Amino acid sequence: MFRNTYDSDNTVFSPQGRLHQVEYALEAVKQGSAAVGLRSKTHAVLLALKRSTGELASYQQKMFRIDDHVGIAIAGLTSDARVLSNFMRQQAMASRMLYNRPVPVNRLVSAIADKAQVNTQEYGRRPYGVGFLVIGQDALGPHLYEFSPSGTSYEYYAMSIGARSQSAKTYLEKHFASFADCTLEELVQHGLHALRETLQQDKELTINNTSVGILSGPGSSFKIVEGPELQPFLSLMVPKADPAAPAAAPAEDVQMEDAS
Amino acid sequence: MFRNTYDSDNTVFSPQGRLHQVEYALEAVKQGSAAVGLRSKTHAVLLALKRSTGELASYQQKMFRIDDHVGIAIAGLTSDARVLSNFMRQQAMASRMLYNRPVPVNRLVSAIADKAQVNTQEYGRRPYGVGFLVIGQDALGPHLYEFSPSGTSYEYYAMSIGARSQSAKTYLEKHFASFADCTLEELVQHGLHALRETLQQDKELTINNTSVGILSGPGSSFKIVEGPELQPFLSLMVPKADPAAPAAAPAEDVQMEDAS
Amino acid sequence: MFRNTYDSDNTVFSPQGRLHQVEYALEAVKQGSAAVGLRSKTHAVLLALKRSTGELASYQQKMFRIDDHVGIAIAGLTSDARVLSNFMRQQAMASRMLYNRPVPVNRLVSAIADKAQVNTQEYGRRPYGVGFLVIGQDALGPHLYEFSPSGTSYEYYAMSIGARSQSAKTYLEKHFASFADCTLEELVQHGLHALRETLQQDKELTINNTSVGILSGPGSSFKIVEGPELQPFLSLMVPKADPAAPAAAPAEDVQMEDAS
Amino acid sequence: MFRNTYDSDNTVFSPQGRLHQVEYALEAVKQGSAAVGLRSKTHAVLLALKRSTGELASYQQKMFRIDDHVGIAIAGLTSDARVLSNFMRQQAMASRMLYNRPVPVNRLVSAIADKAQVNTQEYGRRPYGVGFLVIGQDALGPHLYEFSPSGTSYEYYAMSIGARSQSAKTYLEKHFASFADCTLEELVQHGLHALRETLQQDKELTINNTSVGILSGPGSSFKIVEGPELQPFLSLMVPKADPAAPAAAPAEDVQMEDAS
Amino acid sequence: MFRNTYDSDNTVFSPQGRLHQVEYALEAVKQGSAAVGLRSKTHAVLLALKRSTGELASYQQKMFRIDDHVGIAIAGLTSDARVLSNFMRQQAMASRMLYNRPVPVNRLVSAIADKAQVNTQEYGRRPYGVGFLVIGQDALGPHLYEFSPSGTSYEYYAMSIGARSQSAKTYLEKHFASFADCTLEELVQHGLHALRETLQQDKELTINNTSVGILSGPGSSFKIVEGPELQPFLSLMVPKADPAAPAAAPAEDVQMEDAS
Amino acid sequence: MFRNTYDSDNTVFSPQGRLHQVEYALEAVKQGSAAVGLRSKTHAVLLALKRSTGELASYQQKMFRIDDHVGIAIAGLTSDARVLSNFMRQQAMASRMLYNRPVPVNRLVSAIADKAQVNTQEYGRRPYGVGFLVIGQDALGPHLYEFSPSGTSYEYYAMSIGARSQSAKTYLEKHFASFADCTLEELVQHGLHALRETLQQDKELTINNTSVGILSGPGSSFKIVEGPELQPFLSLMVPKADPAAPAAAPAEDVQMEDAS
Amino acid sequence: MFRNTYDSDNTVFSPQGRLHQVEYALEAVKQGSAAVGLRSKTHAVLLALKRSTGELASYQQKMFRIDDHVGIAIAGLTSDARVLSNFMRQQAMASRMLYNRPVPVNRLVSAIADKAQVNTQEYGRRPYGVGFLVIGQDALGPHLYEFSPSGTSYEYYAMSIGARSQSAKTYLEKHFASFADCTLEELVQHGLHALRETLQQDKELTINNTSVGILSGPGSSFKIVEGPELQPFLSLMVPKADPAAPAAAPAEDVQMEDAS
Repeated sequence: MFRNTYDSDNTVFSPQGRLHQVEYALEAVKQGSAAVGLRSKTHAVLLALKRSTGELASYQQKMFRIDDHVGIAIAGLTSDARVLSNFMRQQAMASRMLYNRPVPVNRLVSAIADKAQVNTQEYGRRPYGVGFLVIGQDALGPHLYEFSPSGTSYEYYAMSIGARSQSAKTYLEKHFASFADCTLEELVQHGLHALRETLQQDKELTINNTSVGILSGPGSSFKIVEGPELQPFLSLMVPKADPAAPAAAPAEDVQMEDAS
Repeated sequence: MFRNTYDSDNTVFSPQGRLHQVEYALEAVKQGSAAVGLRSKTHAVLLALKRSTGELASYQQKMFRIDDHVGIAIAGLTSDARVLSNFMRQQAMASRMLYNRPVPVNRLVSAIADKAQVNTQEYGRRPYGVGFLVIGQDALGPHLYEFSPSGTSYEYYAMSIGARSQSAKTYLEKHFASFADCTLEELVQHGLHALRETLQQDKELTINNTSVGILSGPGSSFKIVEGPELQPFLSLMVPKADPAAPAAAPAEDVQMEDAS
Repeated sequence: MFRNTYDSDNTVFSPQGRLHQVEYALEAVKQGSAAVGLRSKTHAVLLALKRSTGELASYQQKMFRIDDHVGIAIAGLTSDARVLSNFMRQQAMASRMLYNRPVPVNRLVSAIADKAQVNTQEYGRRPYGVGFLVIGQDALGPHLYEFSPSGTSYEYYAMSIGARSQSAKTYLEKHFASFADCTLEELVQHGLHALRETLQQDKELTINNTSVGILSGPGSSFKIVEGPELQPFLSLMVPKADPAAPAAAPAEDVQMEDAS
Repeated sequence: MFRNTYDSDNTVFSPQGRLHQVEYALEAVKQGSAAVGLRSKTHAVLLALKRSTGELASYQQKMFRIDDHVGIAIAGLTSDARVLSNFMRQQAMASRMLYNRPVPVNRLVSAIADKAQVNTQEYGRRPYGVGFLVIGQDALGPHLYEFSPSGTSYEYYAMSIGARSQSAKTYLEKHFASFADCTLEELVQHGLHALRETLQQDKELTINNTSVGILSGPGSSFKIVEGPELQPFLSLMVPKADPAAPAAAPAEDVQMEDAS
Repeated sequence: MFRNTYDSDNTVFSPQGRLHQVEYALEAVKQGSAAVGLRSKTHAVLLALKRSTGELASYQQKMFRIDDHVGIAIAGLTSDARVLSNFMRQQAMASRMLYNRPVPVNRLVSAIADKAQVNTQEYGRRPYGVGFLVIGQDALGPHLYEFSPSGTSYEYYAMSIGARSQSAKTYLEKHFASFADCTLEELVQHGLHALRETLQQDKELTINNTSVGILSGPGSSFKIVEGPELQPFLSLMVPKADPAAPAAAPAEDVQMEDAS
Repeated sequence: MFRNTYDSDNTVFSPQGRLHQVEYALEAVKQGSAAVGLRSKTHAVLLALKRSTGELASYQQKMFRIDDHVGIAIAGLTSDARVLSNFMRQQAMASRMLYNRPVPVNRLVSAIADKAQVNTQEYGRRPYGVGFLVIGQDALGPHLYEFSPSGTSYEYYAMSIGARSQSAKTYLEKHFASFADCTLEELVQHGLHALRETLQQDKELTINNTSVGILSGPGSSFKIVEGPELQPFLSLMVPKADPAAPAAAPAEDVQMEDAS
Repeated sequence: MFRNTYDSDNTVFSPQGRLHQVEYALEAVKQGSAAVGLRSKTHAVLLALKRSTGELASYQQKMFRIDDHVGIAIAGLTSDARVLSNFMRQQAMASRMLYNRPVPVNRLVSAIADKAQVNTQEYGRRPYGVGFLVIGQDALGPHLYEFSPSGTSYEYYAMSIGARSQSAKTYLEKHFASFADCTLEELVQHGLHALRETLQQDKELTINNTSVGILSGPGSSFKIVEGPELQPFLSLMVPKADPAAPAAAPAEDVQMEDAS
């Protein structure tokens, strides 16, 4: 491969004004298994595909509780995710201890975005190699944010990150107009159908490989639904329409060690 | 591509006395969507094209309030913009707390220019990859500044930055002689027509992709007009004269991840 | 060999979003001699192949006691293992002194994973070149974790690391369903049979080259069984079924100086 | 272009004992628009060509007041000029506050020369990319200094820096013998004629593109004359003798972004 | 020679998970003259070949007393050995002063191994280029350790390091079964015969080129036997069996400046 | 030119044990205009060729007073000279303030030599690019030292540095035997004749391009003689013997910006 | 010359376990003029060849007094020698002030060896480029040490360093057996004859180019004999035997600027 001379240091611009190391970090996110997030006027849900590390372990955890009112799903380097999510927990805890209130969701998301921006500008550290979908509930209602290692965070109605997330996004774009008034159950169904789009042709969502994270309204706590508890949701899903349809390009599905 | 050996470090001059890393940072600004600023004797307005990140999100925010009397529009790396605009807010807040007065606009602009200059001269950090149009109101009346990652800031009667901003500048140069005595409504119309010049042939300004920022005179506060509120302004625009005219070179419109 | 230009610094991503230095550190783990861990509902055991440094020394130590309720088996660079295990002991001791209780096992494992993550992101240090299997006993029962130099730690029912560990994993996957209800003796037998799979064709487990680490239930202490004490366990093993079966690929067994 | 291997770091000598990075910084000065300085026994004046950034802005500021008795004209990187001129203002202010007197001009010039020398010898910073003409009035009468990014400062009877400054120097050398006894008006006329020599064939000095800085004697303050106030001076100029003369080599006139 | 791109920095792994700089440091040890160590149940002895720096000096010192109960023999860079042995002496002295007891031998050896490990992982220092054989006497009886610049230390029954040490190891492996019950005199004889194996064909152990270090039991002090005192031991040696046997590969015997 | 790979860092030895960066710094000295120093038993004088920067400035200063009893002449980078001479002045002043006596000349010279040595050994700074001739008067009589950027200082009877200084040295070597008993006037005449040897064929010493520094005995102060005051000395010179003699190799006379 | 890729940094081992930068520093020592040291049971002497810097200076100083009981002769970079000898003087002075006794000679030599070792292992500084012969007198009698920039110091009966020192060593090896019982005069004669061996064919030892340093017994002070005082010693020398013998290889005699 031809050597690109502007990509070996995150603090160097290419002649086109691009930061290659940041773009490569985004590749690490794309290699994590997919996660989907969506919200209605009252609820927010996360859905994620757990990647198995073989039969000898439980599936890898893809969702984490940050505080009662905030949960995240991750895609990318697991160790970077742990460091950043611990930082979020500390921020959330500090808010409760210092100000006696839950941290506003957008402040929490800005805090990790600022932390990530530093690693795109200063020498001595690589960018983080993980992306988050963050759902939270605060005085303004439910929120869904995408955090990216480029140091940005955007609010979305619905979003997907990770491997084959484009397929999930296509589903979400087709249906997102109706999400605002969905019941929690309907939101979860939409999310599961979107998530299923990221699977390879011969795979199915199961109670083992799927996680659902729920914030069901003001005062409720972030709850992760996994295993048998998940069966009722999966049973409600519409069967795949066209089993003979060609699978998504497998090239997108290259697996990376330690990518969630 | 031939390797330019003087461009991999922002602290190295080329034999021609140029700082290539700074020039590449300016490229990052050129890849952000366009923003336009103009002022009369009494008012100052910003107009910007919001870039969609798909249907699943609101358009990206292009304008930010710094203080009651100051607002900015950005073009370039969103995460760098957030860091610099937070710095501006802190400066503005410090002025109110320490001196009990709004910060003079030129002082605020010099502060970020100084901050940016350091990154063009010292090791350990790349230049910032974002440019600002800043409007502000102070004892001297309305102001419009352009801040550039090269560490400079100039005052303008009217200015445009970002993708295809040359087309907007051409419009502004043709009409700027009349801006001084414009009403607020006339200023906004001129700004919208200038901004429209940066669109590709088949695109139009809409209430979704356009932001207008207004400082309407002494004592007023920076206000961002978006969405339905914007319709009256758009409705007043003169239709495009020549729909068959060739579009601007599409090469200039390459989109960069995280560029506003 | 063709020069890969993204692998000489652990803080640089490749265009594919990979951290080559981290992957090479994982190679150092694969070159250590094999270790196996498994657990039932009540017990957890470690089994490891000690590598001889010749007849003039005892076999190299492969297992270490961290605290009464925690033990580890290592694969990779011995000196890195010593540094990290000392760090674990300090953490365990601090818990007893500050909080008057044994450190929770997952906290102990997270602590070294965080420590290892830093070396995958910041300049100035290479990643650690050693992996651990950690067994521990706490209020939640017995645990088995794998720690990897990538900065991750996963909990497993059964796991193997080091040279030819894939063969042991194959054995474990075939039998792990039955581990939950095993007696301690049965667990050890399963572990020994899995460990034997990592041997070259003409080698056998002996009281000299095998270590067994046992946590036999609440209140018990981590105990290493070696030498003559080990004979009863070895005597119970089922003889190898097919001595004529082809050995595992010897290429995987390249030995590295100072690899355990 | 053949790669010169001694020019990528300002702290490295070439085999010929040259500091290439310093020489390249001098190139940045040569790309700024021209400035001229001259003095009589009693007065000192600066004259500079303001570079337009288009019709949308006032011309860029080329002269700055440092203190009542000191003013400068700059050529080169504007952001570096701002940093160094702020430093000069602080030095001047400190002298008034600590010693209750205006800072001696040569001390002020030495201070920035020392600051610039560090950047030619120590790692971590590039040399400054800007040159100054400094005029000042003190007990010894009027002074004219040239400050260069090489860390030197020389006193002159008359001097010019920036693009095509050689043409201005030729004029000054022809007439400098008569400067000592010039009236202020005569000095300005000589300066304007020298400055005009730096223009391209088809350009003229106007009230928009020309700045004049004046120190008219003991006790007077540095004053910048621009715009309509400048007309009387321009009206007195002798028309260009030979409009058909060939223009100076255009190659010298390459414009650099942010060069004054 | 083909350039190996992973060996120029001690903190970089090769794709095979190897640390080349550490391996090269081990080469420095192999170029020192040989040392042999062995122990019985009650005694421990060191034997080493002193390298002459010509007739004008005494032979170089190969053994050093660390404390009454600990002595070392070195192979590799003499200056590194001096630094590390001084560190050991400080540790030993600190133990006596702070805890009023001799430092446990394994703690002393771990201390330099930890010190050496840092130089295999952090930037800014090369690995040490020296190996030690350490004998010590403590409550657990006599000990023999090998310290290596890779940051490891192993306990041995008998060991040899330095040039042609493989020949000595072959001797030791043939006879080590009998060492446990040897008298001090028998241990020394075995050691001398092992050391003689490292000599080139035409060389002999003499009272000038041989050092013997002795720890003769609990309460005894480390004693170095050299010169005439050594004659009785040498006189007892069995003459070389086969003077016509081919010498060891001379390639292993390349001499390095400052290697002991 | 063939790339010499050992010369890009002052802290690296070449295989021949040379420090190329130091040698290149000596080249910078050779490109300064010449200076000559000589002493008798009672007096010491400096003579130097001032380099013109064109008609618009006085000639550049080549001699500096450090203290009443010490003066220097410089050759090389002017900005480095200013930094080092300021350091000498501080040392001299400190001696008078702390010890109430003039600083001994050899101590002053050692101080800058030590300062310069650091820049030949440690990273982060290039060597100084300037050489000095230092004359001083103390209890031991008059002294003449040469300071070189290599970090050395030697005492001389007579010496010359800078461009074409070899020609001056040839003159000095021919006559130095007689210097000890010279009168001040005779010393100056010898110095002027030596200095003239460094001129190009068609140049002459004039009151404008020549500086003479004088220390005329115990208790006298360093005095610089320039301009009209110099005419009597120049008038006494013997006319050049052979105007048709070929000039020295012009290649040696390449001028460097900012070289004195 | 073929590029050796392991020699550009003193902290990197070559694949053969060598430190090239250290070896190149030893080359700098070999390019200094020769020095010889030898001792009897009661006396120690140094003899060195002073290098002329031309007729205009005294010969360069090759010997330095450190304390009453210690003197050194140097070969290599003069500026490094000055730094290290100043360090020795401080150590010697500190011993007298803190402990009220002369510093033991071996401690003094170890101190600079430790200082030099750091520069062979840590980044940021090159190794020292100078070697010393050190003679000293203490309770144990007279000593002769060689200090080398590799960070080692060995005691010798007699030794020579610098250019063509091998010839001197050959002489010393032939005669050193008799040195122990020599009178001071005999020692000096042996030293002078050894030193003469380092001269080129057509050179002779003279009172100008030779230095002799003497420590004549307990309680005596280090004394340097130079100039006319030296004549009696030179007069006693045996004339060169074979003036027609071929000179030593001139290649060894390459002179380096600032090498003593």
